[in-house]
Amino acid sequence: MENINILFGRRIKELRLRQNISQEELGFRCQLSKNYVSDVERGRRNVSIKVVEKFAAGLRVPVYYLFKWHDGDESVHL
Amino acid sequence: MENINILFGRRIKELRLRQNISQEELGFRCQLSKNYVSDVERGRRNVSIKVVEKFAAGLRVPVYYLFKWHDGDESVHL
Repeated sequence: MENINILFGRRIKELRLRQNISQEELGFRCQLSKNYVSDVERGRRNVSIKVVEKFAAGLRVPVYYLFKWHDGDESVHL
Repeated sequence: MENINILFGRRIKELRLRQNISQEELGFRCQLSKNYVSDVERGRRNVSIKVVEKFAAGLRVPVYYLFKWHDGDESVHL
């Protein structure tokens, strides 16, 4: 499995681009700097779940959605 | 919305109890101490996503599943 920071960063970028917003705009929404957003998208930050929550709020999606990078995962239920 | 650390901790505990394993056993599986697991379950730690990944591996669920605390969230698709 790939590094979770890389997977998370890729997912943030994907959702940001789907909404057609810049890193600066996303940073503004999340109260994070543009550089921090850039670092996260490149997998260079091991963010805490408090920061994860900020991204979810900024992207207006539920938190779990930021970790849904494989459709196949959807079938798992315990 | 409740503090994400509280929600996350409650979810970890819920999934752990559903598998009938102790905090010690979960700690062993995740390579974390029993005390650390206990702190997380009480919402006293702001864990990083690397640690989130350890919990997912220890509980044998996909990462996103640890954040699925509201069934209502499932309807969100962008």
